[in-house]
Amino acid sequence: MARIVQKFGGTSVADIDRIRNVAKRVKREVDAGNEVAVVVSAMAGVTNQLVDYVNRISPLHDAREYDAVVASGEQVTSGLLALALQELGVNARSWQGWQIPIRTDDVHGKARIVEIPAGELEKRFAQGQVAVVAGFQGLGPDNRVTTLGRGGSDTSAVALAAALKADRCDIFTDVDGVYTTDPRIVAKARKLDRIAYEEMLEMASLGAKVLQTRSVEMAMNHRVPVQVLSSFVDAPGTLVVDEDEIVEKQVVSGIAYSRDEAKITLEKVADRPGVAASIFGPLADAAINVDMIVQNVSEDGRTTDLTFTVGKADLERAVKVLEGKQKELGFARIKPDRNVVKVSVIGVGMRSHAGVAQKMFQTLADKGINIQVISTSEIKVSVLIAEEYTELALRALHTAYGLDAA
Amino acid sequence: MARIVQKFGGTSVADIDRIRNVAKRVKREVDAGNEVAVVVSAMAGVTNQLVDYVNRISPLHDAREYDAVVASGEQVTSGLLALALQELGVNARSWQGWQIPIRTDDVHGKARIVEIPAGELEKRFAQGQVAVVAGFQGLGPDNRVTTLGRGGSDTSAVALAAALKADRCDIFTDVDGVYTTDPRIVAKARKLDRIAYEEMLEMASLGAKVLQTRSVEMAMNHRVPVQVLSSFVDAPGTLVVDEDEIVEKQVVSGIAYSRDEAKITLEKVADRPGVAASIFGPLADAAINVDMIVQNVSEDGRTTDLTFTVGKADLERAVKVLEGKQKELGFARIKPDRNVVKVSVIGVGMRSHAGVAQKMFQTLADKGINIQVISTSEIKVSVLIAEEYTELALRALHTAYGLDAA
Repeated sequence: MARIVQKFGGTSVADIDRIRNVAKRVKREVDAGNEVAVVVSAMAGVTNQLVDYVNRISPLHDAREYDAVVASGEQVTSGLLALALQELGVNARSWQGWQIPIRTDDVHGKARIVEIPAGELEKRFAQGQVAVVAGFQGLGPDNRVTTLGRGGSDTSAVALAAALKADRCDIFTDVDGVYTTDPRIVAKARKLDRIAYEEMLEMASLGAKVLQTRSVEMAMNHRVPVQVLSSFVDAPGTLVVDEDEIVEKQVVSGIAYSRDEAKITLEKVADRPGVAASIFGPLADAAINVDMIVQNVSEDGRTTDLTFTVGKADLERAVKVLEGKQKELGFARIKPDRNVVKVSVIGVGMRSHAGVAQKMFQTLADKGINIQVISTSEIKVSVLIAEEYTELALRALHTAYGLDAA
Repeated sequence: MARIVQKFGGTSVADIDRIRNVAKRVKREVDAGNEVAVVVSAMAGVTNQLVDYVNRISPLHDAREYDAVVASGEQVTSGLLALALQELGVNARSWQGWQIPIRTDDVHGKARIVEIPAGELEKRFAQGQVAVVAGFQGLGPDNRVTTLGRGGSDTSAVALAAALKADRCDIFTDVDGVYTTDPRIVAKARKLDRIAYEEMLEMASLGAKVLQTRSVEMAMNHRVPVQVLSSFVDAPGTLVVDEDEIVEKQVVSGIAYSRDEAKITLEKVADRPGVAASIFGPLADAAINVDMIVQNVSEDGRTTDLTFTVGKADLERAVKVLEGKQKELGFARIKPDRNVVKVSVIGVGMRSHAGVAQKMFQTLADKGINIQVISTSEIKVSVLIAEEYTELALRALHTAYGLDAA
């Protein structure tokens, strides 16, 4: 007997027939003698509809009311799935965030889970009952409904698995696992059997949209074994596990890319101590995250060019903030650029292998692709290049690191 | 300064523009210096959609899950209206049933309100905040969401008005008040300025669909002054008040009709003590409500014909139950009839005026309409007639009792 958390995303519960199919999947685990908790998203399209209502009524809305409205989608699916399970003879009931309760902090619209008391669900497991939990939502300290941000149901599932000390957390989605890179771009992309938490975390935060970043963080912190698999195909997916459980480590496991960043270059910034703080301070105050940063070597010894990236959605605001400080900062010109892509190679094997970055630079150079910004960490190398080279770069790197399917 | 509860039905909040209009209505009361709580239904069509989902998945569904799913519609509207009010600069927040909490009994799908603690809302009133409350829903003793039955938001509003000791409960709907009879049938029907609780209760339970019966009961028991008015027209509606507050009492205030009943006749039932109990006992056990009953005079002194009405939706089931007991009950034949209508004349003035029933019988006889069953109470006379005479009977009675508009 194992204890399992299963999470089904919006496309997996998009209509009544699919909800019935999900019920069959759940029943299979129950029939195998397992204790099962299920986490569900809203039916595909419902959350977008609700967000649209909110934005039409109030563009700068009270996040507490946004949460009350938007959380209703998961409430509906959890009730419907509990009914579908009952129809199959499975003892099941739905749980809303406030009923368990899934306690969160008070950051409405983007809350973090603080605590999930497992007592009541454990008692129901002992009675053979399946818990169907509304994902994405929780209960804030103000006794109001909170939501966890888009994709938050992944985090609900992993947090629940951690609280229940589950043996596995299965994330059912519309792809059948985690790939070496985006198979829509690279035909030779391979599905990975296993991937390390750290790698998955980099993949998620560097653009692969298969899991919400925060859910991977939480899985890593609590050592929850996560499986990503398809709700439409009956086949094993990708296991996200501890590095030690991966026997044959690849130097590079995957290649991610993100079109969500934009580049800003400040020309002829005074080259003196404290200048970086005086630039990035105002951006931080405006809640604008800065990602990659590079400072060119000063030619004249007195000024330098500073380049960095921000989220595309924040670009205009960032430019406005900096223009407002031009006198104070003393730069000559500000150059925004939306036509960039960040490409990253990721692998825990880098820790013990040299030359990974060098191979990346060489491969891109051989294709005539200019690198604009570089940033590295222990297990990844990211470069910013012109967006038009995205597909070319991905295919070349996929081959260069020996990731192509046979 | 007054304390007012306003309730807006599904057509009044059917889309974003209408929700904005509702917000303006609410703001007007706030600007007039009043303390306001608003109760909202789901956007028109939403509840039907959710009920349809539930029935498709599970025709004989667990009422607790039905409630969890179906209550979500009001949750959405309450959040959206709170946002619309905030956009107009009105301090407002939404409340779900479990947050106040609106405590109900455990009869899921048709719960009754037990208690509404008013403390928190009173405190917010003192701070100038408008409460936007999700109608139709409450919290059961099992800590799960309950719903109050179709039309239950009327009851939510009246119960809230009672708990808050409100000066008035305004029920906004798609008609502009309570009429002497259905204006779609009788062109000369008049809108009533005032109607007594008892009359409204009979009107509602005898077929007029303007208010949920239970909400009128509750208003009467707690002496909550209710006003029924249109959310689309800016005019006073009908006040539902204590009989004493109506100066010029009409003998008959209104004429209601219901096509929801069907007739069953049992021919040649043994005419002996206890036979009624042996017939209506099994029906009660099957949760079938019997309304009008008439027992014909026995011709041969040993058998009699028994006629009664049940809800049309229960007719087939009732016939099946009785057929199963034919031997035991010893009747010769069972004759169901769907083509009947119940027409009722209602008025508190009947208490002090004789001849009301006689006028009804004479008026119908003059038009050649045969009366099949009669039932009376202190303030109403109901007759069952063939359905094809509905319009003819309503118009004739409306004229006979002097209700026609000038």
